[in-house]
Amino acid sequence: MSESFGLNVQARSGAARAGTLTTPHGRVATPAFVPVATQAAVKALPLAMVRDTRSQLLFANTYHLYLRPGADVVAQHGGLHRFMGWDRPMLTDSGGFQVFSLGAGIEHGVGKVASIFPGEGGPKPTGQSGMVKVGEHGVVFTSHIDGSRHEFTPEHSIDVQRRLGADMIIAFDECTSPLHDEAYTRASADRTHRWAERSLQAFASSSPLHGYDQTLFGVVQGGAFESVRRESTRVIAGMDFGGIAIGGNLGDTKEAMYRVIEWTVDELGDDSRPRHLLGIGDVPSVWEGAARGVDTFDCVAPTRNARNGGLLKRFDDDGSPLPQFRINLKNARYADDTRPVDETCSCSTCQNHSRAYLRHLFKAGEQLGPALATVHNLHFMSDLMDTIRESIHHGRFEDEKRAWLEPTGANAELA
Amino acid sequence: MSESFGLNVQARSGAARAGTLTTPHGRVATPAFVPVATQAAVKALPLAMVRDTRSQLLFANTYHLYLRPGADVVAQHGGLHRFMGWDRPMLTDSGGFQVFSLGAGIEHGVGKVASIFPGEGGPKPTGQSGMVKVGEHGVVFTSHIDGSRHEFTPEHSIDVQRRLGADMIIAFDECTSPLHDEAYTRASADRTHRWAERSLQAFASSSPLHGYDQTLFGVVQGGAFESVRRESTRVIAGMDFGGIAIGGNLGDTKEAMYRVIEWTVDELGDDSRPRHLLGIGDVPSVWEGAARGVDTFDCVAPTRNARNGGLLKRFDDDGSPLPQFRINLKNARYADDTRPVDETCSCSTCQNHSRAYLRHLFKAGEQLGPALATVHNLHFMSDLMDTIRESIHHGRFEDEKRAWLEPTGANAELA
Repeated sequence: MSESFGLNVQARSGAARAGTLTTPHGRVATPAFVPVATQAAVKALPLAMVRDTRSQLLFANTYHLYLRPGADVVAQHGGLHRFMGWDRPMLTDSGGFQVFSLGAGIEHGVGKVASIFPGEGGPKPTGQSGMVKVGEHGVVFTSHIDGSRHEFTPEHSIDVQRRLGADMIIAFDECTSPLHDEAYTRASADRTHRWAERSLQAFASSSPLHGYDQTLFGVVQGGAFESVRRESTRVIAGMDFGGIAIGGNLGDTKEAMYRVIEWTVDELGDDSRPRHLLGIGDVPSVWEGAARGVDTFDCVAPTRNARNGGLLKRFDDDGSPLPQFRINLKNARYADDTRPVDETCSCSTCQNHSRAYLRHLFKAGEQLGPALATVHNLHFMSDLMDTIRESIHHGRFEDEKRAWLEPTGANAELA
Repeated sequence: MSESFGLNVQARSGAARAGTLTTPHGRVATPAFVPVATQAAVKALPLAMVRDTRSQLLFANTYHLYLRPGADVVAQHGGLHRFMGWDRPMLTDSGGFQVFSLGAGIEHGVGKVASIFPGEGGPKPTGQSGMVKVGEHGVVFTSHIDGSRHEFTPEHSIDVQRRLGADMIIAFDECTSPLHDEAYTRASADRTHRWAERSLQAFASSSPLHGYDQTLFGVVQGGAFESVRRESTRVIAGMDFGGIAIGGNLGDTKEAMYRVIEWTVDELGDDSRPRHLLGIGDVPSVWEGAARGVDTFDCVAPTRNARNGGLLKRFDDDGSPLPQFRINLKNARYADDTRPVDETCSCSTCQNHSRAYLRHLFKAGEQLGPALATVHNLHFMSDLMDTIRESIHHGRFEDEKRAWLEPTGANAELA
């Protein structure tokens, strides 16, 4: 771990912890939500406006950027920060998740969300994927853009992430699906551990290219199988990573996911390295993840929902809690509604625009609708993380969590 | 003309004039370019960023807003400014142009651009349109959104524009196409003059609805026929309008358009009311229009070009003038070009982003590409208008115009 990187935990509430993550591009107050900039852009929104939402760091996807525009183009600019025009911290993933979600994921008929909550899609395994071939050396896959063939190995993933230049990068891993049985999941986790060693060696034998240090995170795998998760945690935590990411298949329900996090954090004990939960960022999961000791969360849901007219909000107009923590702005009831989306929200969208105007933009197909909705949702997530952090600092975390989740039934099964 | 409105001419160079247009929502330095916000949104760009391009006023389309979201929804917000969140001056058109461009324009196979420069589309008249029926009372037309039937009359257009609440609104007119002969164009202009009287009466017998005055502009028609244009100018200028708009068919070539402007301004003489040229905003036309006494120009070209990757620029990298005053960012030559679009430009896009990054956004289908390109093009237009105004104020207008246009051949035929 470099001196320019590390988590300083300042307050705890049970397993929940609040602190400051130091990176070469500045500090991050944790727990933190990490908006996703898959292709080096937060969809629909100029970065000046992303900054105004108080988003502290961004997450970009190695797989996409490797294929387009290519890591060399990004490197010629001096790395992702300069390429995008973002001067705050960044993470990249290893490429593994997309390699598999665009290969085995397609083959199994499941994406990330469906793999966690199959009610949303119904996975149907159909056999071995022609898109992806996994071997001990690495993964050969077919580009979703032009059908060309590529190979990712631990060494290649680290090389690409060196060139991209995020502050935090992730060791190459295989991401299993809920349809893989325990035997496959265990064999895959073992391979991921061997790839983790190779990733660490490749990282140690290379240097940062853009004038600042990078930190390598390991990924805990193991699906929803307790013994495999616990073993994967022990193995990954025993290596010289700067941080721990929790990845892969997290189970079929939110409750299963919460258990996976609990097993992981239980094995980590008082490990002070930062813990990142990959691909999860809905409101109940953020509360429950923070409660179990997660420091950072990346997720496309707040920005994707925004582009579909789903605006994050805690209470409906009659004061009742919104079960999904959002309203659908396209609803006809908002056609002549001159109120802001949330009268208690200080984002520039709520300060300047009505529900009727936003609905008009969506109905008229104006790209400004998704942009203004994205401002609101990212601002909502920043507010939510402020609430979580402050409640940990002030010893009110459990009360606040209960106040947020209990009325919605979101944590009914966890009581 | 209300006291809150008027043009104060401060400098002249031949027919060109520079001044200050006072409106209820602030002052506009003229000559000015007016970006188009057809559906109460500048396509792709949040208004906070439109403001940063130093755009002084916006143009919205009555036809579109009448159909969606409806003038009443806008009125309930207190007018367009509050509906959009734009506190600077605004214009709306009468609805006439779109009624005809989505009726007779479709029927003739011509849009606005093709009607001016038929090389771009080749008009082919095919007979009377089923979409639009013109009568003395007004125009019955079919919505391009849902096929419903609507009628626009001078009285109705004024009523809708009262509810929309722009600072400057426009009398209802018939917009003829280049395929109409002189006899039809003359008869149509005569009817537009009768509609102008009715528009004035409807305006005088109604009141502003949103707490500030509005000013009504008349529209000069007459196609590219000199005697009809001159007569239309005399008739419209003789009425109690607060400003004069130059509309309709402006001829088959830029040179024909420049002649139409010359006839109009010649008839206007030392009329000090503001003159608006409808739907024209390419670089040579803005120079030549300003040279002939036009004060304001609205046009979708700078924003539409931006969304297609056409970025406005005067000189290419080798110092040669760009004949179309733009580059195509999608060109492969920019794939690894780390320079800004224009190294002399102070817009936030050129200050923060490379050509390679912008090209990547366009190739990856990110909406951020059109947004950042729109920032640059609107900033370019603001810079261009600054140059034009300052050169009028400092007696260098003809020299500057020649320096801009001569090397490109854009005004070769006008020498």
